[in-house]
Order: sequence, then structure tokens, then C-alpha cells
Amino acid sequence: MLDITGEVQEKISKGNIKEGIATVFIPGSTASVSTVEYEPGLKKDIPEAMEKIAPKNKDYEHHKTWGCDNGSSHVRATLMGPGKVFPFKDKALILGQWQQIVLLDFDTKTREREVIVQIIGE
Amino acid sequence: MLDITGEVQEKISKGNIKEGIATVFIPGSTASVSTVEYEPGLKKDIPEAMEKIAPKNKDYEHHKTWGCDNGSSHVRATLMGPGKVFPFKDKALILGQWQQIVLLDFDTKTREREVIVQIIGE
Amino acid sequence: MLDITGEVQEKISKGNIKEGIATVFIPGSTASVSTVEYEPGLKKDIPEAMEKIAPKNKDYEHHKTWGCDNGSSHVRATLMGPGKVFPFKDKALILGQWQQIVLLDFDTKTREREVIVQIIGE
Repeated sequence: MLDITGEVQEKISKGNIKEGIATVFIPGSTASVSTVEYEPGLKKDIPEAMEKIAPKNKDYEHHKTWGCDNGSSHVRATLMGPGKVFPFKDKALILGQWQQIVLLDFDTKTREREVIVQIIGE
Repeated sequence: MLDITGEVQEKISKGNIKEGIATVFIPGSTASVSTVEYEPGLKKDIPEAMEKIAPKNKDYEHHKTWGCDNGSSHVRATLMGPGKVFPFKDKALILGQWQQIVLLDFDTKTREREVIVQIIGE
Repeated sequence: MLDITGEVQEKISKGNIKEGIATVFIPGSTASVSTVEYEPGLKKDIPEAMEKIAPKNKDYEHHKTWGCDNGSSHVRATLMGPGKVFPFKDKALILGQWQQIVLLDFDTKTREREVIVQIIGE
């Protein structure tokens, strides 16, 4: 779980659009985007909750298709969805005081991730 | 779980944009937005399902950070996400006959909530 | 779980907008939209995970309201949300190599579904 608020805000700051929405989207089927109060406790609580919903060590049918081990990653990503939309005004994200935008990478191996930030407004 | 369809529709009706999307977003990390058939049964079923996913009485790591008791609220909000996007046409939300837009406040204390409704289109 | 990537891409291809976002939305309270690697294994794994979150045979309060049997469908749909937003560039959806857009119909009876694809950009 990685805080990407700075990167999203930077993309908005560098653009010419004052008010609108930023779509933050992961091209890939084993990661998601959401918001969280980014502090050490929840960095453990959120993965623990996901482990309960889709445990890593289960025998997923997906493993039989490819001989891989990341069925849990796919299930978690589909449940949480590949992206979210964030409103901004005066080129500033409208977030709560303790709310950060995070990339949740569910894959079982370390990966480089590309994150799409598409900005629309005027 | 609070029906906010009327407030979202009102914002669209008062604006000048005929066709587009309304981003409904909660600045805060313990509430979400979704749709539901807003009737008394589901007003009990949905919280019960959330209680199974992230029980209130669990010892969350988040509680150790702040000495608070709303770890479950944060986990639920991150899982469901802070906002949703709703299409509209001729200044009317495109919803199913039994589909309402709801604010799901997961916090353990009663709070006032600000809801952002950002409208884009033409 | 039905692959609707082709239909969404077709709508983008036929329009005049080169870069923007496509909001894919279900008017109805018993279905959702997300992405998945659309292969036979996950077509079993995803419904199995949803069955654990909101089992079909549970006695939902919703059933008492209407004498129906689709409480699980409503709970699943509210949890996953009624729609998602997808960025595109040069009239092509930006998706991962093994990522498809899917309609998840949770209802207990076979239904015809209308899917809204609202395109915004320039």
C-alpha cells in the first residue's frame, strides 16, 4: 500500500485545468486504487482484512489456468476495482485532513506499476 | 446509510450542464458512497455484511496509533472507496427504478459530513 | 460475469472524442462493473469469493420486505458499486494486457441488462 497523493497532486498542479476530476487508474488486474489514513496501523489492518476476504494460500482455479500463485491478487483487485475518481478545485485535490490516495498492489511478486492520471475539467 | 439522491439531483437540476457525469465524493477516510435499493431490510443487511468483513470489536492496529476505536470504519471505507461517478442526461440522473445513491457513514461516532458533488459535461 | 470490453471500446471508436474517460454504469441495484483477467479459472474464483462475503442462502431482511430471494445480490452490488470509470487515449481504452471490463450480474434470476457508457473528453 503506497501513498501516491503527491504524484496525483503534482500532475494536477502542472496542468492548465483549475477545476475538475482526476481519474487514477491501474492498467493491470492485480492492483487497486483507494483512499486511507496513511499511518502504520492501517498499513497492517487493510492487508489483514483483504487476507480474510481472499486468502493467499487458497487453491484458486486461476492457479490451474497458468500454474501461478496470485489468484488472491486478482480476486482482491476485481472486488476493489482498478481505479477511482478524485475531484479538485483551484488545482488542489479535495481530500479529508487524514485521507491519502493509495495504490494497493496485491500481486505476490514485486512489480513496477504504471499509474494513469487522466485529468478533465476547465 | 443515508439516501442522498435528492441532493445530488438538485445540484444537477440547478446547474447549466445537460448531459455528463456527477462525481459524488466524501472528503474523509471513514465513509463511502454507493447505490442501494433504499428499503428497511437492506438498511440492516448492508451493515451486517460490513460487520462480517470488518467487525467493530476487533483489535485493530489503528487503535494503537491513536487510542481510538474506529479501525473498522477505516477498513470498510478503504474497501468500498471514497466516491462514485453517476451519469446523467437531460439533467436527470440515470438510475434504476429501485436504485438510490447513499452515503455510508462507517464512523463509530455521529458526525456531520460534507459531500462533494462535482459536475462535468456540456 | 460477462466481458463487455468490446462494447465499451466500440462506443469510444464510433464517437468523436479522442482522449477522455468512459463511465460504465448499471442502472439497477443487483449488478456491478469491474475489471478482471477474463479466463475460466477466475470466472469461478470471483463468484466463490462473493459467495463468502454475501452467501445466497442467508435469511436477508430484504427478503421479508418483498418475499424475494435476492438479498445477496443487493449486498454484493452495493459493496462493489454500480459503475467504474475508464480512461482512454487516441480512442483506445488504456487497459492492462490481461485486463477486461466485466459486468457482474449478481441477480438470482436471468435478466436483460442495460449498460450506460457515458463518454467525456475532447
